[in-house]
Amino acid sequence: MDKFEKAQKILKEINADGWLIICNEDSDINSRFLLGVGSHARHYIYVDAGGNHKVFSVEMEVAMIESSLKQRSIKCEVIPYRSLNGLIKLLTPIVNKSRIALNFGENVLNEYGTSQADYIRAGDYFSIKDLAPKTEFISAAPIIHELRSIKSSEELKDLRNVCKATLEILEAMPEFVKVGMSEKEVRAKIEYEYMKLGKIAFETIVGTGPHSADPHHNTSNKKIEPGVLLIDTGLQIDEMCSDITWTFWVGNNPADKFLQAYKVLYDSKKIANEYFIDGTPNYLPAKKCREYLAEKGYDHEKLFFHGLGHSLGFEAHDIGARINRNIPETYTLKENMVYTNEPGLYWISKWGIRLEDDVIIGKTKCEQVTYNPEDPILI
Amino acid sequence: MDKFEKAQKILKEINADGWLIICNEDSDINSRFLLGVGSHARHYIYVDAGGNHKVFSVEMEVAMIESSLKQRSIKCEVIPYRSLNGLIKLLTPIVNKSRIALNFGENVLNEYGTSQADYIRAGDYFSIKDLAPKTEFISAAPIIHELRSIKSSEELKDLRNVCKATLEILEAMPEFVKVGMSEKEVRAKIEYEYMKLGKIAFETIVGTGPHSADPHHNTSNKKIEPGVLLIDTGLQIDEMCSDITWTFWVGNNPADKFLQAYKVLYDSKKIANEYFIDGTPNYLPAKKCREYLAEKGYDHEKLFFHGLGHSLGFEAHDIGARINRNIPETYTLKENMVYTNEPGLYWISKWGIRLEDDVIIGKTKCEQVTYNPEDPILI
Repeated sequence: MDKFEKAQKILKEINADGWLIICNEDSDINSRFLLGVGSHARHYIYVDAGGNHKVFSVEMEVAMIESSLKQRSIKCEVIPYRSLNGLIKLLTPIVNKSRIALNFGENVLNEYGTSQADYIRAGDYFSIKDLAPKTEFISAAPIIHELRSIKSSEELKDLRNVCKATLEILEAMPEFVKVGMSEKEVRAKIEYEYMKLGKIAFETIVGTGPHSADPHHNTSNKKIEPGVLLIDTGLQIDEMCSDITWTFWVGNNPADKFLQAYKVLYDSKKIANEYFIDGTPNYLPAKKCREYLAEKGYDHEKLFFHGLGHSLGFEAHDIGARINRNIPETYTLKENMVYTNEPGLYWISKWGIRLEDDVIIGKTKCEQVTYNPEDPILI
Repeated sequence: MDKFEKAQKILKEINADGWLIICNEDSDINSRFLLGVGSHARHYIYVDAGGNHKVFSVEMEVAMIESSLKQRSIKCEVIPYRSLNGLIKLLTPIVNKSRIALNFGENVLNEYGTSQADYIRAGDYFSIKDLAPKTEFISAAPIIHELRSIKSSEELKDLRNVCKATLEILEAMPEFVKVGMSEKEVRAKIEYEYMKLGKIAFETIVGTGPHSADPHHNTSNKKIEPGVLLIDTGLQIDEMCSDITWTFWVGNNPADKFLQAYKVLYDSKKIANEYFIDGTPNYLPAKKCREYLAEKGYDHEKLFFHGLGHSLGFEAHDIGARINRNIPETYTLKENMVYTNEPGLYWISKWGIRLEDDVIIGKTKCEQVTYNPEDPILI
């Protein structure tokens, strides 16, 4: 079943006539997920419960979209529009149905809300309501969740491939990185290798010294200094993204405190792995990881101030509940979901370590598709 | 005046209490525009008409945001939230005012609409309405337009700098590009150079042979072949983006048809430049350019199927009406706006040329901050 057919099946289950995706200047990534190609101008994808799928696009992008859909054997008509009035004429019959799913989130400020399905811009939403005041518009959250959170065997194959390619680039870092090079130069080298193969999944974080203690550090012009060097990076070749963090030591004599924290994090990650299995509540790997850090004398409340992991897939932060000790127990892991496992310890303004691997949830055990070196690599 | 102070001034003019920007996973670029740093987790920026500005952010990103604001001498309190309930408590008093501006567009399917101000996701919009049912929410379009469409002298300096750096990288292409290299390899090289200096403004388009006839071509694994090679690329070092297209000929004997079209486009661009001046209607440069193409015997209706240019700035497609012969004459150019000037001719499935430069609108003449070689460069 291709993605359009899968979506059709879900539309029937939720008793909706169709699913409309509105994308303008890359506002909705589900467009590229469905079409297999990035269309930048304003366009509309209508997945029809009856199989009569349509895309409305500017003339200039029709051929590109058609060719991508053809390559994926997806039957879907691509219709050009020449003006906004023309577009309105095409859209009006499409949205005047009983029930149409749109990519908006509900209760986004609630833990149980569907903020992950919130893509449509407010103005776009109003414009569609205006065209079809009698239609019931429902959130497409169940469609997005089902299509994207559990991965197909092709997607898992793609994931293993992209993870392998990313690891090869990380493995080459010790030969490349030198003291005095800037963080941006290191990032540029990594992303240069990525660009030859595919796309950057997210902006690589290169943090030297105290910058390693800032988990969302914006890579800067600071020169690499002796001590901790953290690299958090991800690649997308086909559909799946990798997301890996390695923490290196620049110099020959790593500090004892660094070595100890590294070992404890490495082991805590292994412990968490035991709980990345089908049916386990999302909070459990995080809880077990933190218990181990506490047992080893680390004040994780203070030093580990982010969640343990997130869903990984077509986006680096993909669809699905996060791995965090506060996630309600009704959220459970399912076979073939993909998650990051990324414990960290940070001494603000000093240094930090994060070790991040990617795992596929299995029936009885997880498959860790990446690795972190057991002992820190010295550069 | 810094950006917050400018926004404050506009808030007073439109009689609003404040401007609330909601950003989650990079959903609103105006966040980075205001903060000077990319915050990825859910955060809220409140620009207060009275100057009592606030940012609500996850704890992990507070220090990063504070340090960026401090560097810019912006007075704004950064307050961490620890849960969505905590966030709601912080937001409620902020949004319960008379009139609050939010980044939504109005009449987005109308040429006169404000789709360029449409950033807020529908679910985020609903959540704010829920917190403050009595508040009047207005579109922040006038604020965004005034803050971003006309550039400050610092921004223009930054633009000249980024354009110069981009040109140097393009000038080095003939030594780098070889027949048999893939489009992606060429893109990777260009973006590698960018990454050392800053960010990629948009995904570089590298189109060999027939791909040059597709203006929004997704750079592929296709090998560079003799004949036309089109590169459309842009860099962002500090705030301004460059956006330049050069069209090369790979091989020693460029086809006469190519040389003729190149010369005509080059001249049509010069003609358009004469109309990139303060007070001129946006449609005029496009109209004059097309008239010249027609005069030279080119069927521009068929061969030139996109607009002549777009606003350029913090985003490659920036705030401001496009340059297109259909733009109503009420839209006029203003001094210190920045536009691309990019005529093209495309023979679908065969080859195409686009020559794109960046211009600053002047009082009596424009300043072209980039250049295209007068004769095509042979590779």
